[in-house]
Amino acid sequence: MRDDLLHLAQHLTQQGYLLTLESLTAQYAHISEFATQEIAQLVQQVDVIIVMGGDGTMLSVARSLGDSQVPLIGINRGRFGFLTDLRAENMLSEIDAMLQGHYQAESRMLLSAELQRGSETFVMGQALNDVVMKSSVRLIELEVSINQQFVSRQRSDGLIITTPTGTTAYALSAGGPILHANLQAIALVPICPHTLSYRPIAVSSDSQISVRLLHCQQAQLSMDGQAKMELQAGDLLRVARSRHAVNLLHPQDYSYFERLRNKLHWS
Amino acid sequence: MRDDLLHLAQHLTQQGYLLTLESLTAQYAHISEFATQEIAQLVQQVDVIIVMGGDGTMLSVARSLGDSQVPLIGINRGRFGFLTDLRAENMLSEIDAMLQGHYQAESRMLLSAELQRGSETFVMGQALNDVVMKSSVRLIELEVSINQQFVSRQRSDGLIITTPTGTTAYALSAGGPILHANLQAIALVPICPHTLSYRPIAVSSDSQISVRLLHCQQAQLSMDGQAKMELQAGDLLRVARSRHAVNLLHPQDYSYFERLRNKLHWS
Amino acid sequence: MRDDLLHLAQHLTQQGYLLTLESLTAQYAHISEFATQEIAQLVQQVDVIIVMGGDGTMLSVARSLGDSQVPLIGINRGRFGFLTDLRAENMLSEIDAMLQGHYQAESRMLLSAELQRGSETFVMGQALNDVVMKSSVRLIELEVSINQQFVSRQRSDGLIITTPTGTTAYALSAGGPILHANLQAIALVPICPHTLSYRPIAVSSDSQISVRLLHCQQAQLSMDGQAKMELQAGDLLRVARSRHAVNLLHPQDYSYFERLRNKLHWS
Amino acid sequence: MRDDLLHLAQHLTQQGYLLTLESLTAQYAHISEFATQEIAQLVQQVDVIIVMGGDGTMLSVARSLGDSQVPLIGINRGRFGFLTDLRAENMLSEIDAMLQGHYQAESRMLLSAELQRGSETFVMGQALNDVVMKSSVRLIELEVSINQQFVSRQRSDGLIITTPTGTTAYALSAGGPILHANLQAIALVPICPHTLSYRPIAVSSDSQISVRLLHCQQAQLSMDGQAKMELQAGDLLRVARSRHAVNLLHPQDYSYFERLRNKLHWS
Repeated sequence: MRDDLLHLAQHLTQQGYLLTLESLTAQYAHISEFATQEIAQLVQQVDVIIVMGGDGTMLSVARSLGDSQVPLIGINRGRFGFLTDLRAENMLSEIDAMLQGHYQAESRMLLSAELQRGSETFVMGQALNDVVMKSSVRLIELEVSINQQFVSRQRSDGLIITTPTGTTAYALSAGGPILHANLQAIALVPICPHTLSYRPIAVSSDSQISVRLLHCQQAQLSMDGQAKMELQAGDLLRVARSRHAVNLLHPQDYSYFERLRNKLHWS
Repeated sequence: MRDDLLHLAQHLTQQGYLLTLESLTAQYAHISEFATQEIAQLVQQVDVIIVMGGDGTMLSVARSLGDSQVPLIGINRGRFGFLTDLRAENMLSEIDAMLQGHYQAESRMLLSAELQRGSETFVMGQALNDVVMKSSVRLIELEVSINQQFVSRQRSDGLIITTPTGTTAYALSAGGPILHANLQAIALVPICPHTLSYRPIAVSSDSQISVRLLHCQQAQLSMDGQAKMELQAGDLLRVARSRHAVNLLHPQDYSYFERLRNKLHWS
Repeated sequence: MRDDLLHLAQHLTQQGYLLTLESLTAQYAHISEFATQEIAQLVQQVDVIIVMGGDGTMLSVARSLGDSQVPLIGINRGRFGFLTDLRAENMLSEIDAMLQGHYQAESRMLLSAELQRGSETFVMGQALNDVVMKSSVRLIELEVSINQQFVSRQRSDGLIITTPTGTTAYALSAGGPILHANLQAIALVPICPHTLSYRPIAVSSDSQISVRLLHCQQAQLSMDGQAKMELQAGDLLRVARSRHAVNLLHPQDYSYFERLRNKLHWS
Repeated sequence: MRDDLLHLAQHLTQQGYLLTLESLTAQYAHISEFATQEIAQLVQQVDVIIVMGGDGTMLSVARSLGDSQVPLIGINRGRFGFLTDLRAENMLSEIDAMLQGHYQAESRMLLSAELQRGSETFVMGQALNDVVMKSSVRLIELEVSINQQFVSRQRSDGLIITTPTGTTAYALSAGGPILHANLQAIALVPICPHTLSYRPIAVSSDSQISVRLLHCQQAQLSMDGQAKMELQAGDLLRVARSRHAVNLLHPQDYSYFERLRNKLHWS
């Protein structure tokens, strides 16, 4: 990793680009040859962020963007990446082409969530993949409303509220459909529902989703796989499309469906 | 049925509405007291069509609309109706209220399909629910493209291309997700796919979907459950959103989610 | 509940049966008119145990049986019972008939489990439904072997090892098949597996199942829905058919398939 | 194929084995150097049959066995074989070892089926994988009984009745579980059932299964993927374990689970 980072950084510098490393990355990789900056400042000041790692790293950077609209380029390391779509082997030539303007830009929606407990409201931040309520013990009971309309009362292991981006991640394992990344939709995917006819449902991305927790034990709220809060009966979770989005840059020959075929071993 | 029809027709006439019966219905029900007209003319000349029957009847009327935008009201008879949402018991008061302007209007997208075989192109018409390619023998092999981009080659019993309306019909039995009726999307739901990771996928409703039949035996193309054509290897099916839509009128207190709860026995 | 209990107890006493109440039940229901005994002694000394409650109560009594072969009769209270198959409404006449010998006897297999951690072995007891390893955070990684043969390495939310009895409980929500209660089999049902082709698998009931936990966070071992132990990476779980079984007595007209139809709303 | 056949035949003859080719195979491959016999006689007179091809070829030979108990060895050609487990590359050494007694013998159950229509009974033969009733148009309605007990009335695309061997074939695509090849069970797997709670169910292999066709259009009965008969409303299909079985010989190091991992791409 360190070698690839150095290699890329030197290459970009030679090309005349002004390069800043995220400070924790520089520290972790023992690289001191380049300017560094903390992520919160970085996202406000650069023209593009190049992320090297897996989808988890992309998710983590996406959560750090705040109101910055700086676009992200992902270079894949390790396991197959859905968001990190440049392969390390030929990253230099691909990056060069992209920085010269040969790319596909794509905007991915984020979810924002807040939790109301009694008179308190907790702002839970944003998710590029999903917002999940899940119990480690058997059943939770919850009540879902969309745009103030009652949808259903469910007994299940939990509920996944997912962006199109998230439908190829955890929600897929729970039996959810694939929503194309550019579909303006949010999907609700129940986890092991008690009633077999509770099926995944996709609604318009401008929907206001509320979930009231009626009964739970040791249930967690997590976002993009990060535990956020222990849930309590009575909690009210509100999820909606964030006014921010994540801007991804893909290589010119990027194909969503090709990614899908590779990830799901359709051959 | 005849009694309910007569009852409704007399009631509407007494209210001063000008009423025309669809001619086959009048003939079948032995009703001769009212003016009749064939469906093709009817849809061009009336202000609203009231359909009495089940969802199949609604689908059949919807296919007869051509370029007419006349709205439909459905009165349910028999099995639970998803599209026919007035119950026969209190139809008079509900119809009165709706004709006085107390209704929710909703536009439902249609799919249009054409089949290319060699140099010939067959126009297959429109579907409110779904376009289905399916074999009665084991496997068909087909290749799906969306907006000229290759998606996948599949071996399966068949493929369902469905509107949001159709996702609560046949596609649901095949493991498809529910797409809210107002979502601008089309779903592709494989039927018993050989590869277990071929999962339902929803794409934007402005997508151009092509399916090339590579291999089949005794496969049928059907639309809204009506057999349309025996398929042959080499056939190319093109499906896209129709420029027409079906306009439904619902009672003032109509709730999509309540329909869903009732139909799927969520309670 | 107290009224029904008293009513049944008085009725049986009048019929000349010698009746003992389980001591906690008597205490909880404030009944002091009858002899009481603790469950551990009770199961060794009576000819039949009548359980009043839901399936959870039956599961709890079943776990208390130790090596006793005393048969159980279940009277259902509350939610639909799969194991408690007498309805409270006509319990007196049904119980009378059964105690006079008009019943169907059925033996249901139990699973026994033990957990090996380093050099220690923890005996985890018995389960009538299932043994479950599950994480509240996203993924656990485990390796399954059957009769010392490597089966698979899985990344998932967890794994359910279930008796035929348990296949109509939690395992069904996770997508497992129904195994008829008299099938000599054990099913392994993955919970939200990362790899979509990991499907439920049923093996012979004399199989020795081992599960090695390779990676986990906040994962629990539970049996019949009761949390037993926090799991650690490296733990080895061994599950096999218990040498004990639970003997159920059903009314003469009991039908397994009728229970199934009612529970799953097949109508 | 011809080369491999010749190569194997010459090798076995050199080893001193008495070899007979199935006559159609010899004709098709233009091989005239060896004795030939028709399949019906062959299965009665040889000590072992070596099948070269795919699983389809094995199924076809299995159906020709009649009451012969002659064991089968399968050499795989082409697509991955579940039943044909020797690879062509090293077939000579593997065959030698097996013919010298180094093998695992395994007996696989067959289903036998008969169809009653009015006063006529049609004997439908045997299946190693499955007996399938399926419609090319949307719904068939059927009623299932097991051992004269009513199980359910179903509306679906069809029903698969499968041996454990068949659970890794078509039934898996329809959402069925995997039943280990040595489990004494038969599974009933509905195809796209209208009611979402109709789930696959496995019953003991000594069960008598009857299916009454209540309503159908263009429905077919097929066995092991071979169309057998056009079905009619009123038909009664009876399926049970055949008194015959198929005896397979596997290489010494054969592992059922390894086959499964390879076929389902668990890695």
